[in-house]
Amino acid sequence: MATDVLDVIRTKRDGGRLSDEQVRFFVEGYTAGTIADEQAAALCMAILLRDMERDELAYWTQAMIDSGERLDLSSVGRPTVDKHSTGGVGDKVSLPLAPLVAACGAAVPQLSGRGLGHTGGTLDKLEAIPGWRATLPTERIIAQLRDVGVVICAASETICPADRKLYQLRDVTATVEAIPLIASSIMSKKIAEGTEALVLDVKVGSGAFLPEIDRARRLAETMVGLGAAEGVRTAALITDMETPLGRACGNALEVAEAVEVLLGGGPPDVVELTAALAREMLGLAGLDAGAGVDPAAALADGRAHAMWDAMIRAQGGDPDAALPAAAMHHEFRAPASGYVCRLDARAVGVAVWRLGAGRSRKEDTVSPTAGAVCVRKPGESVEAGEPVLVLHYDDAARLDGAVAALDGAVEVGPEPPEPRPLIIDRIA
Amino acid sequence: MATDVLDVIRTKRDGGRLSDEQVRFFVEGYTAGTIADEQAAALCMAILLRDMERDELAYWTQAMIDSGERLDLSSVGRPTVDKHSTGGVGDKVSLPLAPLVAACGAAVPQLSGRGLGHTGGTLDKLEAIPGWRATLPTERIIAQLRDVGVVICAASETICPADRKLYQLRDVTATVEAIPLIASSIMSKKIAEGTEALVLDVKVGSGAFLPEIDRARRLAETMVGLGAAEGVRTAALITDMETPLGRACGNALEVAEAVEVLLGGGPPDVVELTAALAREMLGLAGLDAGAGVDPAAALADGRAHAMWDAMIRAQGGDPDAALPAAAMHHEFRAPASGYVCRLDARAVGVAVWRLGAGRSRKEDTVSPTAGAVCVRKPGESVEAGEPVLVLHYDDAARLDGAVAALDGAVEVGPEPPEPRPLIIDRIA
Repeated sequence: MATDVLDVIRTKRDGGRLSDEQVRFFVEGYTAGTIADEQAAALCMAILLRDMERDELAYWTQAMIDSGERLDLSSVGRPTVDKHSTGGVGDKVSLPLAPLVAACGAAVPQLSGRGLGHTGGTLDKLEAIPGWRATLPTERIIAQLRDVGVVICAASETICPADRKLYQLRDVTATVEAIPLIASSIMSKKIAEGTEALVLDVKVGSGAFLPEIDRARRLAETMVGLGAAEGVRTAALITDMETPLGRACGNALEVAEAVEVLLGGGPPDVVELTAALAREMLGLAGLDAGAGVDPAAALADGRAHAMWDAMIRAQGGDPDAALPAAAMHHEFRAPASGYVCRLDARAVGVAVWRLGAGRSRKEDTVSPTAGAVCVRKPGESVEAGEPVLVLHYDDAARLDGAVAALDGAVEVGPEPPEPRPLIIDRIA
Repeated sequence: MATDVLDVIRTKRDGGRLSDEQVRFFVEGYTAGTIADEQAAALCMAILLRDMERDELAYWTQAMIDSGERLDLSSVGRPTVDKHSTGGVGDKVSLPLAPLVAACGAAVPQLSGRGLGHTGGTLDKLEAIPGWRATLPTERIIAQLRDVGVVICAASETICPADRKLYQLRDVTATVEAIPLIASSIMSKKIAEGTEALVLDVKVGSGAFLPEIDRARRLAETMVGLGAAEGVRTAALITDMETPLGRACGNALEVAEAVEVLLGGGPPDVVELTAALAREMLGLAGLDAGAGVDPAAALADGRAHAMWDAMIRAQGGDPDAALPAAAMHHEFRAPASGYVCRLDARAVGVAVWRLGAGRSRKEDTVSPTAGAVCVRKPGESVEAGEPVLVLHYDDAARLDGAVAALDGAVEVGPEPPEPRPLIIDRIA
């Protein structure tokens, strides 16, 4: 046994290609506990530095899927399609998107993890709604998909236990950043949740966890390839994350902005990305414009908002209840008059995280109220001393750290900056 | 704390240079148990694949030394000099060498670890001598050096505890082969044992754990550099390990061959290497030919053998007692008539290991009697069906595995092979 683990590690360490048998031996052994954490850590570091070929990665992803349950959504009776974002600051797009796509006739099974680090998690956002529950048994998930058409909930522990264990290991061994491991972690969970189609939103820029376009593109291509190999129709948009998406960052604040979008309003960038992702999802589900389906109409005529209400209520939430609000506010002001040239996504994400909206360790609780509102966005004019950001908080001890994170994050210049395209590329 | 460990791993993962603070933080934390095995494994793999610069490696080695006790041999009253071999098949040279050098006026503090894998350990060999004890308290080590002039014993657990822990981790994570980690593991222990000078025998060839000359040379240069940086005069010989050294392989068999050398006989390759290493050691100790010191004379006139007797007796052993012998023998015969062209060191090492002379896990016990005698060595003539090797064993169940290891290990041809130089290079 020991010989075989060392053989697997050595193969990758020396730049070789892992066989299906080696991958399966490793993933099964690690899940079962016969392979030790230190052996898995050595292999993850070797994978990060040596990379993986397409076939090895397909074996790896399949072994992760096979480590747990794979949901059977065939009883749902509608085409299923999901979306996954690699995470951005102010990225609340899942909230309006999932009910919008469901309102257009697809079933949306969105099983999510918790947020970790400076980009928030969808479940944390929805938990700002009084009464809403993230955890559902599998039969309830399937029933809600059939009866309502959309569910956003926590992935069950029976889905990809190998990934769960491996992700925790990678988090403490500086091996999170390995593209093959990121791709297989995301795709194994999405494939195991049983969706027929998947749209990926791969973020790039300061607020994304892959700041460079080349690596973002490689990740997108890798994931699209894995989806195709597994028979899940998959497409990816590469989208800009240099500045927060929309104006609201923080759990309850983002829910409120999502509801604005569902009511036909909301910031133009959030609306643009929601509509673009909806078109991709509906296209993969065979429900595109040719089928007479128009997401813009479903936003305008209230169908998307009605689906939101039904989704929230089905999980115990009260969509009409007032959202919790922070007791204290702090205005972060423009250093000069002119145009906002830069509002750095990562800095805003870290500030909001430090105010309590995100977690550093998975056992941390998050504040529903902490956050920031971008009163001015890049391209908008501002006078010196006017607020650019308003920080929302309940714990005064956290303010200084948040303000420190914003040092240098706002630049004001005499001319408006060149507009940046929100949607940079499409990979399918 | 967690941030700092990740920072250390990331620095090396991304090809950066570790600072003294980072190295010290890591080695201290790992020894204390605040840094986990999986984090150390990730770092070791990153070091293996990214390498270390000279200054980083000096910090690393110093931190390993500082994790434990450093012996003070100033009371010994003679120049101190030690020797370390990276391990070879039939490499019993420490046994005649240490008393020989002591007989020439230096003090030889040889603190050793146990053998693991197919190359035997010096302590395992000496333990074939009835009554001999490997473990001595520190004050006994110093007293024996002062009173006798030579000690070969187990390194105390108080010497380099960081190395002890890290070596066990590397053994199960396929990170043993990292040259900086090998160099610092060897040198930290040798420096901590307090010797003023050190000669390294770096083996290269099939029976060595570094088969390639380039890597062996790099290891030698790295270790010589580390010794110089720590004020320990250090030189290295790179020596051939394509075929076993001498004729005897196995614990008691090697002791008997070492005694032959101490009595002025023995196989010419063992004598050549023993004499060459003795001259290096005496040179570094300031006791060379210019000082009227001649190791050949000390072998010829019985002084080296008398020193051996005193060394064995000082640790409870009876140098006159009969050595244990195996009950069974198996002749491995020449496939054709002609000259032995190749007798593969690794194959013989593995065969002897499988007969029980070595251990697979550190908690295994070893057989004192198991081994092999090379009746013919490369360059010697043999008739088809005559023995080339005689295997010695007590456990009949082990024979088949040992014979299987010898498949293809012996080649006989019509012409004698080109003689190979035993001493390939000298690095100082």
